[in-house]
Amino acid sequence: MANRTYSITEIVGTSDESVESAIRNGIGRVVQTVRHVDWFEVTEIRGNVHEGEVAYYQVGMKVGFRLEDA
Amino acid sequence: MANRTYSITEIVGTSDESVESAIRNGIGRVVQTVRHVDWFEVTEIRGNVHEGEVAYYQVGMKVGFRLEDA
Amino acid sequence: MANRTYSITEIVGTSDESVESAIRNGIGRVVQTVRHVDWFEVTEIRGNVHEGEVAYYQVGMKVGFRLEDA
Amino acid sequence: MANRTYSITEIVGTSDESVESAIRNGIGRVVQTVRHVDWFEVTEIRGNVHEGEVAYYQVGMKVGFRLEDA
Amino acid sequence: MANRTYSITEIVGTSDESVESAIRNGIGRVVQTVRHVDWFEVTEIRGNVHEGEVAYYQVGMKVGFRLEDA
Amino acid sequence: MANRTYSITEIVGTSDESVESAIRNGIGRVVQTVRHVDWFEVTEIRGNVHEGEVAYYQVGMKVGFRLEDA
Amino acid sequence: MANRTYSITEIVGTSDESVESAIRNGIGRVVQTVRHVDWFEVTEIRGNVHEGEVAYYQVGMKVGFRLEDA
Amino acid sequence: MANRTYSITEIVGTSDESVESAIRNGIGRVVQTVRHVDWFEVTEIRGNVHEGEVAYYQVGMKVGFRLEDA
Amino acid sequence: MANRTYSITEIVGTSDESVESAIRNGIGRVVQTVRHVDWFEVTEIRGNVHEGEVAYYQVGMKVGFRLEDA
Amino acid sequence: MANRTYSITEIVGTSDESVESAIRNGIGRVVQTVRHVDWFEVTEIRGNVHEGEVAYYQVGMKVGFRLEDA
Amino acid sequence: MANRTYSITEIVGTSDESVESAIRNGIGRVVQTVRHVDWFEVTEIRGNVHEGEVAYYQVGMKVGFRLEDA
Amino acid sequence: MANRTYSITEIVGTSDESVESAIRNGIGRVVQTVRHVDWFEVTEIRGNVHEGEVAYYQVGMKVGFRLEDA
Repeated sequence: MANRTYSITEIVGTSDESVESAIRNGIGRVVQTVRHVDWFEVTEIRGNVHEGEVAYYQVGMKVGFRLEDA
Repeated sequence: MANRTYSITEIVGTSDESVESAIRNGIGRVVQTVRHVDWFEVTEIRGNVHEGEVAYYQVGMKVGFRLEDA
Repeated sequence: MANRTYSITEIVGTSDESVESAIRNGIGRVVQTVRHVDWFEVTEIRGNVHEGEVAYYQVGMKVGFRLEDA
Repeated sequence: MANRTYSITEIVGTSDESVESAIRNGIGRVVQTVRHVDWFEVTEIRGNVHEGEVAYYQVGMKVGFRLEDA
Repeated sequence: MANRTYSITEIVGTSDESVESAIRNGIGRVVQTVRHVDWFEVTEIRGNVHEGEVAYYQVGMKVGFRLEDA
Repeated sequence: MANRTYSITEIVGTSDESVESAIRNGIGRVVQTVRHVDWFEVTEIRGNVHEGEVAYYQVGMKVGFRLEDA
Repeated sequence: MANRTYSITEIVGTSDESVESAIRNGIGRVVQTVRHVDWFEVTEIRGNVHEGEVAYYQVGMKVGFRLEDA
Repeated sequence: MANRTYSITEIVGTSDESVESAIRNGIGRVVQTVRHVDWFEVTEIRGNVHEGEVAYYQVGMKVGFRLEDA
Repeated sequence: MANRTYSITEIVGTSDESVESAIRNGIGRVVQTVRHVDWFEVTEIRGNVHEGEVAYYQVGMKVGFRLEDA
Repeated sequence: MANRTYSITEIVGTSDESVESAIRNGIGRVVQTVRHVDWFEVTEIRGNVHEGEVAYYQVGMKVGFRLEDA
Repeated sequence: MANRTYSITEIVGTSDESVESAIRNGIGRVVQTVRHVDWFEVTEIRGNVHEGEVAYYQVGMKVGFRLEDA
Repeated sequence: MANRTYSITEIVGTSDESVESAIRNGIGRVVQTVRHVDWFEVTEIRGNVHEGEVAYYQVGMKVGFRLEDA
């Protein structure tokens, strides 16, 4: 195995259901344009409140993917 | 839109079910006494263990709300 | 109540379902070998992505337990 | 001088002009309802962008004030 | 036990004697106006120096208390 | 409103005038190549000194923008 | 002196008297089961409040000890 | 000198030899696709262990480069 | 260019006008006694409030300067 | 693959040669008593100076290993 | 009151008695060579263990003092 | 052994070779003007890139030395 390089991109996934759903929504969007996505790391969990109820979750993530040889 | 000021209060919501439920329980209690609640940010996720099982989740949050003009 | 001492051990629980399931899996493993487990604190939430989907969640935790008198 | 106690409240001041203006707007709102305000400490500087331009600054602050004897 | 919510308030207790005395002075002031105070966590230890000697200790604390049902 | 995903890019804006000017210069450059820029968050404020005077300000920022559907 | 390896264990010592007493109680418990204890580093100072008074101090510590050759 | 803007990209360089080699491998990959690379800052040093030996080093870096005028 | 060493000194500059003015006042004082001052990094922004208004800004900075050969 | 649990132990490896050597010395000692060691993460790099020269490097690490089923 | 500048020096005070004694010992040493010492802030509390007992406390502090006009 | 006080100075050592070389260069410069240098702690590892290659390493360090009695 050669000495690979990975790139990390930072995103915020959202969901009106759960933290896990926000993670999956964000990852689902990243893999549409980036290949070799390998791992994620949650950096923050926030959310909005509307009329006294949690309206949606916002989960910040660092997402790592392997760079192909240029 | 005038230059609004927001206040941030710190709470711990609890639940014996899930992290999201602890968030909703905490927010539900705050909105009983505070108006214009706008957002939250999770600061820590802890929990208690009783007889070898997770007894409940404790989710620390900063909760932001808009201050009305005094 | 005498002046008790607690010990903290750090683990990573995993699950292909949810953050809470990863927490319960990790705690379930710790209580097999450690007594008097009392609390946990999440230190990081990560995960792996396989073929464009979240494959499993990895939840880092500090787990506290009371030490018996030696 | 007796052993005083201080309380710290967390706010977000906003302004469409500058960081200093957001600080002064936030402090100006706090002193309408709290007495003996003594110091502040900036915890974050954020802002919103609207149609490609900075629309306003949001400055998070911890604001300290002396508590009177109860 | 229902799903309780806790509130966290931030204070600075002071004393010209010791860190523990500053903690007790601050807690003693909080309990005059807040009920169900449950725990504290030290966030910073500072102090003032006057004519070459430590004049007093300033101990920042987060203080947690249980909210009653509204 | 569907479950949007946001991307965060990190930049350093510079100015020989002020912190706010460095923020506006950096945002102004980002919006030339990125659409739907929504918010920024200052991560560090640095600067260079030349012949005993502040030569320019360097303001690190995270800049968030909404991703369009792929 | 060969290239030694040290291990770090994390504990919480408690005392109803003082921070130093909580440190000594915790260290006193560790040395009952671990040899070559060398240093400690305080990671947090917390405490419980009972009926309006500080009931006891909880001092988190990392405790370092030299590992013997296996 | 006009008011330049810099962009920061986050990568992980790897090597089975040393930390410096992992840094150089990562930088070497970035400069294949990005111009005007100017500085780097190490954010974490990790590694994998295989059959009891360090198999390779993983060095996280923020890499800064000057943006050309759009 | 030989392998230079830089020293970092920590100061607090103050101003009753603005953050930038506090930075320039602090740097202006450092260069009276230190040569080869090269860069600064803001570590905190605080301030005092007097009679309900911001009385002055206190800006903590790390200031770097090149050491001459001894 | 079942839902594995990993444990993290914290050590300090030392060497009079290099950071990498201190890492390898520490890992080499851990694998004498722990099985399934998988990864490490550097938490701090320190060292001692003796008679004006670096005497040895001390590298703090978190070391992760897979727990076998109990 | 003109726009004063303060300098911050970092020290470690030690004592075989208590945290407060280590603070006072450190401050007592600083004021022998520095004038206008104004405040301190504890940055870490460590200690050494000798033959199973706490041998002495090491308290890291940032110490602030006003700079005279040059 | 009396209650010694230590002072901490912050420097940046540089080298075009390695992290360890930058540490040794920095320590070598400090001991030319300061006595009783005892330990160092790395605070950051940065570097410059020139024409696509790592030009030199910049290692920030806190360096501790014992103060003699005044």
